[in-house]
Amino acid sequence: MKFFSFWRSLAAFRVRCALNLKGIAPDEVIDINLPQGRQREDSFRKINPMMALPALVEDDGNVLFESLAIMEYLDETHPEPPLLPKAPKARARVRALAQIVACDTHPLIVPRVREYLEHEYRIDAAGLNAWGRHWHDMSLKALEALLSGSGETGRYCQGDRITVADICVAGNAIGAAYFKCDVAPYPTVKRIVDLCWQNDAFARAHPLRQPGAPASL
Amino acid sequence: MKFFSFWRSLAAFRVRCALNLKGIAPDEVIDINLPQGRQREDSFRKINPMMALPALVEDDGNVLFESLAIMEYLDETHPEPPLLPKAPKARARVRALAQIVACDTHPLIVPRVREYLEHEYRIDAAGLNAWGRHWHDMSLKALEALLSGSGETGRYCQGDRITVADICVAGNAIGAAYFKCDVAPYPTVKRIVDLCWQNDAFARAHPLRQPGAPASL
Repeated sequence: MKFFSFWRSLAAFRVRCALNLKGIAPDEVIDINLPQGRQREDSFRKINPMMALPALVEDDGNVLFESLAIMEYLDETHPEPPLLPKAPKARARVRALAQIVACDTHPLIVPRVREYLEHEYRIDAAGLNAWGRHWHDMSLKALEALLSGSGETGRYCQGDRITVADICVAGNAIGAAYFKCDVAPYPTVKRIVDLCWQNDAFARAHPLRQPGAPASL
Repeated sequence: MKFFSFWRSLAAFRVRCALNLKGIAPDEVIDINLPQGRQREDSFRKINPMMALPALVEDDGNVLFESLAIMEYLDETHPEPPLLPKAPKARARVRALAQIVACDTHPLIVPRVREYLEHEYRIDAAGLNAWGRHWHDMSLKALEALLSGSGETGRYCQGDRITVADICVAGNAIGAAYFKCDVAPYPTVKRIVDLCWQNDAFARAHPLRQPGAPASL
């Protein structure tokens, strides 16, 4: 299995974390340097025409992309430990929490969007930070309300087991930190994220632990 | 079951379409007027703190939100007709195609993002249209490459049965039309979308067929 990744990609972080939790080690990790635009080169475009990370290529040539789809696939093909609960209502809640991050927040701060804002609208670094902070604040507020207001929340987002929601929420906290969003006003989010980082599968998946990463974000 | 919807919301379109395909009729459809900001009122915020459409509230009070999560829930609780294939690889492909729309494209053109561009960056109507066109062109290109380049594609995105990918791709075509993106250069996307609109479940779910909709987009 080949894993197309970049240290900073938060979508790649999610899949890396899921792979770690499942105990799956890719045979090869291929670095696609996003700031250098390597995702737009023909060789990667053939793998994912959307030119986005991550992608997984299985030994039989099967190509997987989109982090949520990959995590569901890994969960279906490697059921232990499960990353989704069994009951439909609980699954829907976990997926919705994950999608607040992966659909409503992260897509707004990916490189291609920041490049558009910079090149088309001449938004400077401070403006880009305000943009990123705005969307992270919005999702942190929503996540805190949903997590603190539900009896379904346990040690993790859904009860006491790690799910894809925790993976997404932990990734969102990395994004929030990058944009200098303070997570302190969101104590339930903070508590769960802090617990996630104590898990070796999360810690090893952290962007700053990947080859090519700088010392800090 | 109460369905919180707005005629123009493409995420609400997806769920409406899934409900139609499953033969589920909500007892009540509650209009949340997005341009009037009704999604930010306390009454809706209590239902979905992310202040986004759609939401479904079941008779037992269970709240569902995020369109992809809702469609998976409907598929798990009302299995016929299935909206996802059975095989993990096919499921992953369907979900990835759906997520190109629901994660990589649509989140960039939702009201809250357009409002930010308008109010913070003073982007005018022409600029907002260029923004919307840009992201739709990108996803249409990727979808066409993926659909035309795979033997998995049949009459629909995945073989000959309707899946959540078709629902998302049809919704994306509505967005593309709104931003005056020509779908003609993407013949496989166009063929599948045209076929979808022949299905009554899709046709009845179309934004322009909803209460409060204008005569054209």
